[in-house]
Amino acid sequence: MRDLNKIFNPKSVAIVGATAREKSVGLGVARNILEGAQGQRSVFFVNPNQPEILGQKTYSKIIDIQEEIDLAVIVVPAPVVSQIVDECVQKKVGGVVIISAGFSEIGKEGQIKQDEIVKKVKDAGIPLIGPNCLGVINTSVGLNASFAPRTPKKGEVAFVSQSGALLDILIDGAEDLGVSCAISYGNEADVGLLDVLEWLENDQATKVIALYVEAIKDGRRFMDIASKIVKTKPIIALKAGKFESSSNAVKSHTGSMAGDYKIYNSAFKQSGVIEIESIEEMLDVAKLLAWQNRCKNSFGIITNGGGCGVLATDYCKINGINLAKLSSETVEKISANPVMSPVWSKSNPADIVGDASPMRYKATIEAVLVQEDISGVMVIQTPQIMTEALENARVIIEAHNSFPSKPIVCFFLGGKISQEAIKLLQENKIPNYSELKRGIKSLSFLAQK
Amino acid sequence: MRDLNKIFNPKSVAIVGATAREKSVGLGVARNILEGAQGQRSVFFVNPNQPEILGQKTYSKIIDIQEEIDLAVIVVPAPVVSQIVDECVQKKVGGVVIISAGFSEIGKEGQIKQDEIVKKVKDAGIPLIGPNCLGVINTSVGLNASFAPRTPKKGEVAFVSQSGALLDILIDGAEDLGVSCAISYGNEADVGLLDVLEWLENDQATKVIALYVEAIKDGRRFMDIASKIVKTKPIIALKAGKFESSSNAVKSHTGSMAGDYKIYNSAFKQSGVIEIESIEEMLDVAKLLAWQNRCKNSFGIITNGGGCGVLATDYCKINGINLAKLSSETVEKISANPVMSPVWSKSNPADIVGDASPMRYKATIEAVLVQEDISGVMVIQTPQIMTEALENARVIIEAHNSFPSKPIVCFFLGGKISQEAIKLLQENKIPNYSELKRGIKSLSFLAQK
Repeated sequence: MRDLNKIFNPKSVAIVGATAREKSVGLGVARNILEGAQGQRSVFFVNPNQPEILGQKTYSKIIDIQEEIDLAVIVVPAPVVSQIVDECVQKKVGGVVIISAGFSEIGKEGQIKQDEIVKKVKDAGIPLIGPNCLGVINTSVGLNASFAPRTPKKGEVAFVSQSGALLDILIDGAEDLGVSCAISYGNEADVGLLDVLEWLENDQATKVIALYVEAIKDGRRFMDIASKIVKTKPIIALKAGKFESSSNAVKSHTGSMAGDYKIYNSAFKQSGVIEIESIEEMLDVAKLLAWQNRCKNSFGIITNGGGCGVLATDYCKINGINLAKLSSETVEKISANPVMSPVWSKSNPADIVGDASPMRYKATIEAVLVQEDISGVMVIQTPQIMTEALENARVIIEAHNSFPSKPIVCFFLGGKISQEAIKLLQENKIPNYSELKRGIKSLSFLAQK
Repeated sequence: MRDLNKIFNPKSVAIVGATAREKSVGLGVARNILEGAQGQRSVFFVNPNQPEILGQKTYSKIIDIQEEIDLAVIVVPAPVVSQIVDECVQKKVGGVVIISAGFSEIGKEGQIKQDEIVKKVKDAGIPLIGPNCLGVINTSVGLNASFAPRTPKKGEVAFVSQSGALLDILIDGAEDLGVSCAISYGNEADVGLLDVLEWLENDQATKVIALYVEAIKDGRRFMDIASKIVKTKPIIALKAGKFESSSNAVKSHTGSMAGDYKIYNSAFKQSGVIEIESIEEMLDVAKLLAWQNRCKNSFGIITNGGGCGVLATDYCKINGINLAKLSSETVEKISANPVMSPVWSKSNPADIVGDASPMRYKATIEAVLVQEDISGVMVIQTPQIMTEALENARVIIEAHNSFPSKPIVCFFLGGKISQEAIKLLQENKIPNYSELKRGIKSLSFLAQK
């Protein structure tokens, strides 16, 4: 296992190619690095042509810096990278991230340049991430060594992506979820996906690992490592470049060979990796696995809209989710409650009808969760004129605190009306989905089948 | 064909059961009706126990009103409905909407009450929508005779739903799209889905019809009517209650028999109805069909993120969407443009790389749209530090104005950063999707195969 601590938790960072030019990668990285650095690490900017950047004096060369440098982030144009790497080797930096593009992804000439650099860092024993990447983020130590347009908040999901732009989208989409690490490894010239996975296995902050991959270099070793990791941390994977037409696009993107999709699909299955089909699905599933416990496959549905109960039942059937039978005891207890409507459905889904008050939700959720053979509930709220979304959110949070081992998944539909309530739910790590189909598919990965 | 004009475009409306009680259905309907009434129609509130509602004097009975009444909306409790219907018949109203629940959906006793009411209105020749429904909305004449929590803006899509709560969700989800009509028909005691469809066929404002159905009563006639309508207006349908387990939930919801799903599926196929699988998908597809022209199946992709180009290619393949080959003329024209990056992909997807400026997008989109055998383009924008979303939206709108017959579909991903740009695009009826998978599936219904 490679030691990547100097990259992911550096005590000092130098940005070679930092610049004050607006909308540039060099300024983006400089800003991001400074943001989380206070008290955590020293930051140095290297640029021979600008005496000052963001109020900090610059250095002409990395070797001019007196202090030891753990991490060098390189954002200079491709033709200059090799020389900068020489200086990093001379400086004995602890790790290098090369953000600059223009290497193996552009063809043979780029490949030669890349091989040259790799030889240099390997000879010196310095781990290298990139080139052609967005950089790395480790929120638990306040490190954002990337040019992502936003710094994510702390969370429990690590996003690992061959594509930098994809990582940007995931970071943006994980606004409520938060991020532990976000790592773009680009052309994978030295440090590769498998090294990153091994590092994340031991990262305390990471509970779930989410991968975007175009090509995996060593399938056999991937399966070994992944099978071991999924015993403690679920891995979710999105594979792009599944067909001949799209494999060609992969080649001009990260210079990799996408290979036969069937092999990937079966490798994921065999090693227990959860394969999903889209960016949205990745975020949907990650949220649920990060926030709620895995549980037995036996659920209750509580809804104030009959049609949504019907749709939810369809999606449960399609995704192999079992709906428990409400015991006569549960039905009687709910019916006896004075807040209940006499026309409630008396079965699962528990349709507590359109005028359901927060107290009616509370009575039903608690009665359902008490039933021993029910391992979790889905709570659906449709936006009716008498719906009190925020108060509904509060009673759901209360119920979850009373039964912490039984997952609750919410569907506050017509979400624009319930935004504040949804925010409160998710701050309390109760996932909300705006679409039944997506949420119930996600739930199928939480249920132990 | 039944004449429903007194219901959908009434000159006078009476709300029987209007009330000033907060969070009540009676107040919701009263507020909604008043909102759009100014200058369009007179509104009367009927409530024997409250002298004034929302600043308007009330009537004890509908027969006390002097003026003719086109539409009576009934929101009194179920036991009183039959008597109110008698008075409506006596008043010779033009149509009735019964919002009140407690009829066939609660079992035999309710069915008897419902049959009694239906006989009365049929004998009098008065069309009846409901009972157990949300009401009806017709934005082109400012009519909101429902208790929906929000009044939708004008649009080109009619939403028709057996379930009231579902309609609430659709109205909320159609915030940007807008709505022509929103019609909840509940227990379908008299006026049914087929009557509503025939009315919508002739509604000028409606370009697309979107249905949520649990059960269709007369399948053969549905197929006849639908096959005829889809020649001029696409119909999108979401069928709920596909399995035995969910059919049981249908029964306690709208009192209908869901029947064998396979029959529905084949009826939709045979009559050219687009069947979709979720509420979200309904909104996704409706947006595209309402805003862009159907076109030949030959598309270009323009992206500033390679990974997204790869994913988009996968989804095109899965959904049978053809990606055209860029002609050598097109490639040369794009390469020759001084704004272009030398490392752009030179093939379809056109990956114009991370630092793509608005001018680079413009040059590429226009060059691709000029190529004769390309019938539309997908424009992907990933959120990079140098991305100018709003300016990108402007050049896309410009390009669309130059090539109005060739659809443009946008994917501004990581949408939270591009909200303003997305709003601008959609105000110009260029659909944006936050997820490639969903947008490209929707596009497959626009492409003529």
